[in-house]
Amino acid sequence: MAQMCESVRRAVAVAKVRLDDIAAIGVATPGTMDIPGGVMLEPVNMPLWKNVPVRQYIADTFRKPTVFQNDANAAAYGEFWAGVGRDARSLVLFTLGTGIGCGIIVNDFIIEGAHSHGAECGHMVIEMTNGRMCGCGQPGHLEAYASAIAIAKRTNDALAADLGPSILRTHLLQTGTFDESDCQEIFQAARSGDALANRLVEETAYYLAVGAVNLMHTINPDMVVFGGGMIATGDWFLERIRKHVKRLAFPVPAAKTLLVYAQLGSDAGFVGAAGCGRQLWMKSNKS
Amino acid sequence: MAQMCESVRRAVAVAKVRLDDIAAIGVATPGTMDIPGGVMLEPVNMPLWKNVPVRQYIADTFRKPTVFQNDANAAAYGEFWAGVGRDARSLVLFTLGTGIGCGIIVNDFIIEGAHSHGAECGHMVIEMTNGRMCGCGQPGHLEAYASAIAIAKRTNDALAADLGPSILRTHLLQTGTFDESDCQEIFQAARSGDALANRLVEETAYYLAVGAVNLMHTINPDMVVFGGGMIATGDWFLERIRKHVKRLAFPVPAAKTLLVYAQLGSDAGFVGAAGCGRQLWMKSNKS
Repeated sequence: MAQMCESVRRAVAVAKVRLDDIAAIGVATPGTMDIPGGVMLEPVNMPLWKNVPVRQYIADTFRKPTVFQNDANAAAYGEFWAGVGRDARSLVLFTLGTGIGCGIIVNDFIIEGAHSHGAECGHMVIEMTNGRMCGCGQPGHLEAYASAIAIAKRTNDALAADLGPSILRTHLLQTGTFDESDCQEIFQAARSGDALANRLVEETAYYLAVGAVNLMHTINPDMVVFGGGMIATGDWFLERIRKHVKRLAFPVPAAKTLLVYAQLGSDAGFVGAAGCGRQLWMKSNKS
Repeated sequence: MAQMCESVRRAVAVAKVRLDDIAAIGVATPGTMDIPGGVMLEPVNMPLWKNVPVRQYIADTFRKPTVFQNDANAAAYGEFWAGVGRDARSLVLFTLGTGIGCGIIVNDFIIEGAHSHGAECGHMVIEMTNGRMCGCGQPGHLEAYASAIAIAKRTNDALAADLGPSILRTHLLQTGTFDESDCQEIFQAARSGDALANRLVEETAYYLAVGAVNLMHTINPDMVVFGGGMIATGDWFLERIRKHVKRLAFPVPAAKTLLVYAQLGSDAGFVGAAGCGRQLWMKSNKS
């Protein structure tokens, strides 16, 4: 916590302002949480942070209005406020990394959910029969098909099933298996014409299109945004997602919904947390 | 349109008030539409209503502030405002009829969507491989599994596949096929212990639980409400849906989200449209 506060002080210094110039603070964390309460509950990968009242600590340290948010929601708000969605009234962000994070913004409002579980869209069921197992322990979730871990697993499965020659096999000979850090290699192999890699990437685009269409038929946002490490591969992958969305969605949202890449990279969460702080300040100055 | 206006006049008379006492009017219609524009676009089953500016006509006729809404959204707002959700801050309503209608309310706000296609959750993909064909022409949608039409089709398929003895076969001998109007008979057979009917109903409960969980992991509302003709079968069916939801959802929403039946029956849409009229009036009296 002291380190978090030190980061706040350094950010203020780097911005060449003083703490007195800061109207509000926004902080975003991963894992299960109580958003309105400002408390981290049981973040899976951060066991020491169980039941930590993050917002209260920071608010007490700096004596500033402080807002607390889920990191995926904050990233979506960042893109909405200052990134690719700054002209949109609503957007859904899928962050494609180890898992699939999601944030939903409608009219400057973050869909946090009644129990701080809004926008866990990586865990929507898209396959009921023989669904792939998700890291959360349930089968058939979007994340079990289209996250970096899922792509690595699907690649290992495809090579084990021996679906013809592939330049990906040399990797296997060297390392024994694909893991989540090897996704760019798989995308690169697809671009260079490898048939197996191409099939894996095409299926990934289809799975993400299913996720996008499910949100288009639920939230029907102005814009569906894809962010995270996976988008480094370039626009050709986005084009493939778009192609499937056009085929799968209702005609009006298929024609009108913008499908774009995120612009803020890994800053989206910081920017969005700051934006949430600004939103808090604007609300309190209104009333 | 004249008939719609006559219904308004009769409702006013039955309520023993005068038109002067009416502050605003709410009207809700089915089909594709431009909600903010107040125009029906291409309602599938009402070809004569193409591009009809319903709101303008009613507003001009009565010279009252008039709000226009999708009928499924209005039904959800009705349950939110005056039905089973009157103490909830957010809810999702699934209306189980010929198709599956859906409406989403978050903090007194209807998720209409950027292109008036919000809450078309009957058309979310829940099965990618060999998905059943939906009436909309796309495979794998929730509606293709759990609407009344879908249940009748699945029953016909199961009987054709000859999965053992069933009292449902006598129906086939009489009429040749099950259609959407026969759902209560299938539910009744399940209650009376027929194994095949029981399997069909159990699967239906599972499919609806998948739909509910997908919305719980997206909107995470206080409450998921099931309405429409299918709920006439009684609470035992709701219990089955709940059982699957408890198993499939994340622990916190599984424990905290209320799963309930709607209370307003087929009045939900009228009540909700009126509630939207009230909302319009409150907004305009605020600013």
